[in-house]
Amino acid sequence: MSARHGDDPGALIVIDMINTYEHKDAEQLLPSVREVVPVITDLLAAARGSGAPVIYVNDNFGQWRSHHGELVEAAMAGPHADLVGPVRPDDDSLFVVKARHSIFYETPLTYLLWELGVRKVTLCGQVTEQCVLYSALDAHIRHLDVTVVADAVAHIHPHLAEAALEMMRINLGARITNGKDIGFGGGVATS
Amino acid sequence: MSARHGDDPGALIVIDMINTYEHKDAEQLLPSVREVVPVITDLLAAARGSGAPVIYVNDNFGQWRSHHGELVEAAMAGPHADLVGPVRPDDDSLFVVKARHSIFYETPLTYLLWELGVRKVTLCGQVTEQCVLYSALDAHIRHLDVTVVADAVAHIHPHLAEAALEMMRINLGARITNGKDIGFGGGVATS
Amino acid sequence: MSARHGDDPGALIVIDMINTYEHKDAEQLLPSVREVVPVITDLLAAARGSGAPVIYVNDNFGQWRSHHGELVEAAMAGPHADLVGPVRPDDDSLFVVKARHSIFYETPLTYLLWELGVRKVTLCGQVTEQCVLYSALDAHIRHLDVTVVADAVAHIHPHLAEAALEMMRINLGARITNGKDIGFGGGVATS
Amino acid sequence: MSARHGDDPGALIVIDMINTYEHKDAEQLLPSVREVVPVITDLLAAARGSGAPVIYVNDNFGQWRSHHGELVEAAMAGPHADLVGPVRPDDDSLFVVKARHSIFYETPLTYLLWELGVRKVTLCGQVTEQCVLYSALDAHIRHLDVTVVADAVAHIHPHLAEAALEMMRINLGARITNGKDIGFGGGVATS
Repeated sequence: MSARHGDDPGALIVIDMINTYEHKDAEQLLPSVREVVPVITDLLAAARGSGAPVIYVNDNFGQWRSHHGELVEAAMAGPHADLVGPVRPDDDSLFVVKARHSIFYETPLTYLLWELGVRKVTLCGQVTEQCVLYSALDAHIRHLDVTVVADAVAHIHPHLAEAALEMMRINLGARITNGKDIGFGGGVATS
Repeated sequence: MSARHGDDPGALIVIDMINTYEHKDAEQLLPSVREVVPVITDLLAAARGSGAPVIYVNDNFGQWRSHHGELVEAAMAGPHADLVGPVRPDDDSLFVVKARHSIFYETPLTYLLWELGVRKVTLCGQVTEQCVLYSALDAHIRHLDVTVVADAVAHIHPHLAEAALEMMRINLGARITNGKDIGFGGGVATS
Repeated sequence: MSARHGDDPGALIVIDMINTYEHKDAEQLLPSVREVVPVITDLLAAARGSGAPVIYVNDNFGQWRSHHGELVEAAMAGPHADLVGPVRPDDDSLFVVKARHSIFYETPLTYLLWELGVRKVTLCGQVTEQCVLYSALDAHIRHLDVTVVADAVAHIHPHLAEAALEMMRINLGARITNGKDIGFGGGVATS
Repeated sequence: MSARHGDDPGALIVIDMINTYEHKDAEQLLPSVREVVPVITDLLAAARGSGAPVIYVNDNFGQWRSHHGELVEAAMAGPHADLVGPVRPDDDSLFVVKARHSIFYETPLTYLLWELGVRKVTLCGQVTEQCVLYSALDAHIRHLDVTVVADAVAHIHPHLAEAALEMMRINLGARITNGKDIGFGGGVATS
């Protein structure tokens, strides 16, 4: 795959960052989110600057009212707007809601990537040892070329996050890299 | 299945009725849509009155910006707002976007129905010999109990619509009925 | 798609022809099967001669014992071995079992075609207005280029089969052609 | 889920144990396989004795020739027949081939479990931190009740296997237990 796609920067996928952080693991998760928000902010700026597709895939948190657009508003009205504001979608962003778990499970993401002609995805967001891991698996199984930005994915349990990154690298063929090493304007430099 | 679900009215599924009618087959489709809009309007009133779930599943028409809620607005701003207004979602409606074709293909509808505990769906909308047929197939394959409201589904080609209804009845185990025979408040009377 | 794949003959997909014909619609189906068996026999010879992949996708008829290989044996031991023998798999054939309905639903066919590098499928077998129609839909939704061999697909209800072929042609972008017009050795001539 | 399914022993799922062990990680995997084979052998005896469904889900290793039944023969003819013989399918076993990764991905397993009325699965086989983890995720996402038999799943990397078991327990709601604590005849005792 790598050979075929070369330096194509692919699409930047932002996972579950539109969040009120009111779920039960939020306290354990927040310190890690605070660290990744600036990195994701930079990734967004780079991707937007280069014209790469930016796709948010986000839990729906309850009701399915895709006609309301209330997801971002709810997160911005929550207690952690400071963690949502810098990474929220702009007018050009694509936005897909997911039920839970993988970004591909019962979502149109496969179709959307096909429509865009994109075969490479760069993952950031949360949670490393849960949705990010499951999404990397589902991307790999669909023959997509996967990059995971290690300092732009937030975790709950550090030792499981570390294991998840190793699983993605050795078992799912993902490239694990850091935000500063990704040049959306001129290809991807892998660590 | 029928025995198990008895008179459970299930969920009313409204397919592709949020529409600007600007696609190439629109002229052929519009006369049929004009006939079904009043029937769907009545179905919506009955379902809402009885507390049955109402789920819109609608083509996305282009971009995936589920954070914007622009789909209904675009349809209401189009040349056929008279066909959209009476059947548009209210605040309690659920709304799922689909890529194309079946209401189940790469959508969270299976998950949403599971979450609601619903095993029976009543289909209305458009196009009988396309999305409605494909959706009935995908509902049947998922072991859901399917009712199709014959006078609440719009077609492009009358002879193909007739064949599609017969296929749904004899090959997909669907009940084919009319709007006046469905009592969302007190079970479903089938023709 | 057509432009990209040009005269690539693709894979020949033989649907549900390994059959004991003991199901309830068998009597209505058999006359049509008798007509298509010679055409499928010729298609198989042409595809095998040209080295095109031949993939059987067949209902499993009950138990899932893919380690036993009993499906062909059971069909050959049944009352209609004359309809099975000429079209049975040889040592090079690929063979995928399906649960029911579409050749893609919960089968590895998408993966298998990807592995083979095949983006075009030519469908023959049974039943035109059921599995063949559902399979054409699922192939189309997966962006495969679909050809249906009209005189190599068997039906139960002639008027539904005719409608199904028209649906596949105008709504699912399938090429409808006849066996004599397919040249597996030198591309596909469409009617 | 647990409450609903109580002591229902569910189906025993044997993952990827029909194997020639010729792949690149085999040397690292074999010591662990040697330890789990006796436990799986006991689980098989218990499940068979109690009448619980036993379902093998196995990589296909190359060609798709489900009509040949050559998978078991090939494994028995390989250099590690001693690891295959004790755990091979008997005449009552169900057997499903998978493309790779999860036992659910493009396989009829969901359908088969539905047909059997089984909502609980007990997983054993290989590799803990790969197919077993992916399969537990896909079972969880399908609302199945999952038990993983810790001493009946084989690993390549012990630290990743440990992390995978923890992920399955805390993030995927799986019960992690040992072979001696499972009573297929009289419900499941969890550790």
